[in-house]
Amino acid sequence: MHMIDIITKKRDGFELTKQEIEYVIDSYTKGKIPDYQISAFLMATYFNQMNDKESTHLALAMRDSGDSIDLSPIKGVKVDKHSTGGVGDKVTLILGPLLASLGAKFAKMSGRGLGHTGGTIDKLESIPGYHVELSVEDFIKQVQDIGIAIVGQSGDVAPADKKLYALRDVTATVDCIPLIASSIMSKKLASGADAICLDVKVGHGAFMKTEEEAEKLAKLMVEIGKLSGKKVTAILTGMDEPLGHKIGNALEVYEAIETLQGHGPKDLVEVTLVIGQQLLIDAGIAKDDKEARELLEAALQDGRAYQKFLELVEAQGGDLEKIKHPEQLLSNNKVEVYANKDGYISEINALDIGKAAMRLGAGRETKDDVILLDVGIDLHKKIGDQVKNGDVLATLYVRDKGIDEAKKLVLDSVSIGDKKTTIKLIKKKIS
Amino acid sequence: MHMIDIITKKRDGFELTKQEIEYVIDSYTKGKIPDYQISAFLMATYFNQMNDKESTHLALAMRDSGDSIDLSPIKGVKVDKHSTGGVGDKVTLILGPLLASLGAKFAKMSGRGLGHTGGTIDKLESIPGYHVELSVEDFIKQVQDIGIAIVGQSGDVAPADKKLYALRDVTATVDCIPLIASSIMSKKLASGADAICLDVKVGHGAFMKTEEEAEKLAKLMVEIGKLSGKKVTAILTGMDEPLGHKIGNALEVYEAIETLQGHGPKDLVEVTLVIGQQLLIDAGIAKDDKEARELLEAALQDGRAYQKFLELVEAQGGDLEKIKHPEQLLSNNKVEVYANKDGYISEINALDIGKAAMRLGAGRETKDDVILLDVGIDLHKKIGDQVKNGDVLATLYVRDKGIDEAKKLVLDSVSIGDKKTTIKLIKKKIS
Repeated sequence: MHMIDIITKKRDGFELTKQEIEYVIDSYTKGKIPDYQISAFLMATYFNQMNDKESTHLALAMRDSGDSIDLSPIKGVKVDKHSTGGVGDKVTLILGPLLASLGAKFAKMSGRGLGHTGGTIDKLESIPGYHVELSVEDFIKQVQDIGIAIVGQSGDVAPADKKLYALRDVTATVDCIPLIASSIMSKKLASGADAICLDVKVGHGAFMKTEEEAEKLAKLMVEIGKLSGKKVTAILTGMDEPLGHKIGNALEVYEAIETLQGHGPKDLVEVTLVIGQQLLIDAGIAKDDKEARELLEAALQDGRAYQKFLELVEAQGGDLEKIKHPEQLLSNNKVEVYANKDGYISEINALDIGKAAMRLGAGRETKDDVILLDVGIDLHKKIGDQVKNGDVLATLYVRDKGIDEAKKLVLDSVSIGDKKTTIKLIKKKIS
Repeated sequence: MHMIDIITKKRDGFELTKQEIEYVIDSYTKGKIPDYQISAFLMATYFNQMNDKESTHLALAMRDSGDSIDLSPIKGVKVDKHSTGGVGDKVTLILGPLLASLGAKFAKMSGRGLGHTGGTIDKLESIPGYHVELSVEDFIKQVQDIGIAIVGQSGDVAPADKKLYALRDVTATVDCIPLIASSIMSKKLASGADAICLDVKVGHGAFMKTEEEAEKLAKLMVEIGKLSGKKVTAILTGMDEPLGHKIGNALEVYEAIETLQGHGPKDLVEVTLVIGQQLLIDAGIAKDDKEARELLEAALQDGRAYQKFLELVEAQGGDLEKIKHPEQLLSNNKVEVYANKDGYISEINALDIGKAAMRLGAGRETKDDVILLDVGIDLHKKIGDQVKNGDVLATLYVRDKGIDEAKKLVLDSVSIGDKKTTIKLIKKKIS
């Protein structure tokens, strides 16, 4: 097999075989095909796309380039979720304990990644003592014992995807749905879960700007899941404003705790419930959405979900005192941003809010950046809320960087109009 | 300027500016942009093409990446020709002396290159003593003295094109008309000629298989020439069978001598005359095609063209005795290929004839191959000729390699049908 023939075939719009895709990924991972041929191949793929079968071959070949985790020692249905990334998305922190409190097994390995805030693992590390590095044996044992573990990625998961992603990033080939879908699925399929629910964010604060694009991505990922023998579903949820009120690592833990105690913000609760419903049904714990929702709501209200979160934190060494007083996790330095007119919040540019959090130090721009866990933004007003000139729009928790820039970004990101606007949060379910 | 933005712009179908194209070429030549970004850029260009302006910027940027030759010390109009490559194409060997004998200045630097036979320079080297390496001063002096010099490329012409071509070759981005046109023109525009005639070959034996493609390429090259302030024309000529009868280095010199002596094969003479007409007009030596043709035919018939060829060979040190007995330049080992039925030659696969010549050792597959100057193919029959079973179709001049393969290739490349076929040789002129 010759790489030049495979590039030509994709360039000319023909379907690649499983063997050809495996050859590309295997040889590239081993350094036998140079970057310049792969980047030409990626650009040809950008233009001619890949169909469901090719995308599945690609996802599986990338999965098989590294380690997969075997969760079979854990009895029961192992569930997992994945978000394509949004501002203020702390759903995993709530959904995990919630599902585990109802009997599902939540064995999650999570990345750190780049972004406006850290990843789930960084957020959990804002709890003093919480350690995210467990051996695979300890990880599995903890799920067997208490139904949940959330740890950092162990082993070398989908190294081909890492290598390919780094190349896509510098060759203008990131923005290609089959490549995005295969990349996400290569990692999810290595996670060992039986049922996976994908939260595909859509809106100006998300990678997928339109519902059409988001639906295409979601359908392809669900199809890759099916063709790989996994139960995969997707929910399209809005990212027209940040999810919940709090953005930043410790701030998001704080809001997760509030939500687990039964008084979370409406949008955050709703996204959590919708994904939870799907996974409870997939886990065979509820028969339909209605029953699932009742179970989930009850577990949030009666403290079971919160209790499970405490068990999780304790099992992984976190300081429970801080969970009881999460305000202690935040920076003492606060800066307020005020509304400069009366009206209703009509728009909040989620990307700019995210950027503001990053400027304050909450996220990483490059892999080696150190993030500040106690900084971020508490957004007091959301779309549709009424405000008066001088009201506090947001409180920034800050250290010594990016304050003026973040203030300006937050202020500019909020539009105040005359009429009350509403937005649709749950757009579509794909299975 | 960032390469990623330029890739994205081309990917999204926008026109690139002169500055952007210069940045790409300059930075790539200096090693400041990695191959993998350039190959993504090339593939995006393959899909979205370049318009005339972009192609001109590219050609000029590549020209300016290396040396250009200044022919201004030579009085008179300097003419040049270029062929996109065909089997048996020895037009330069005839046209140069012919035009010089009529007062045009033919200052040609020629490459070796890869192909079924060597380049013009290799062909001339089959004349013992002929030396192709002249200093620029001697080169210019020779043209001043006798009106013609044909030497190897001196200096570093269009190194950006070399680097880019090598990358295109391994990334399936060769077959892209704006890239082909810019590549050819970057080198031609460095040659210092005032008027250039491009012989764009079309047919199954050429790189451009259809007249439509060939015309597109020709028009673009002519336009690049115009936008660069040069007089450039193009002639589309057929490559449905080899040009002339002889294929191979010394064999082509042999056929050039026959033609210069006034008894060349009809197709070879015709292509030479048509290009010659254009360049005589461009040089201001003839006022129209009719007058130019009369001048050219006379110079072929009365020995002036041949005389000029002898002057050229003598000036560059070649053995004139061998020119008088060119059969001495050929290998003594001959193998004949016979017709296996009666009829008319209906088709000759020029590519396979070229491949057969290469198998015998006449051409280079890789840069470092040593070529055999005295081997090749003398094709006794051409399309439309009547043959009888057992007639000699071709004589192979061989050494000790590729004989059986070449025989089979030649035999299989010739189709014999029931009816006399004719083909059109001169397809179109573009100016």
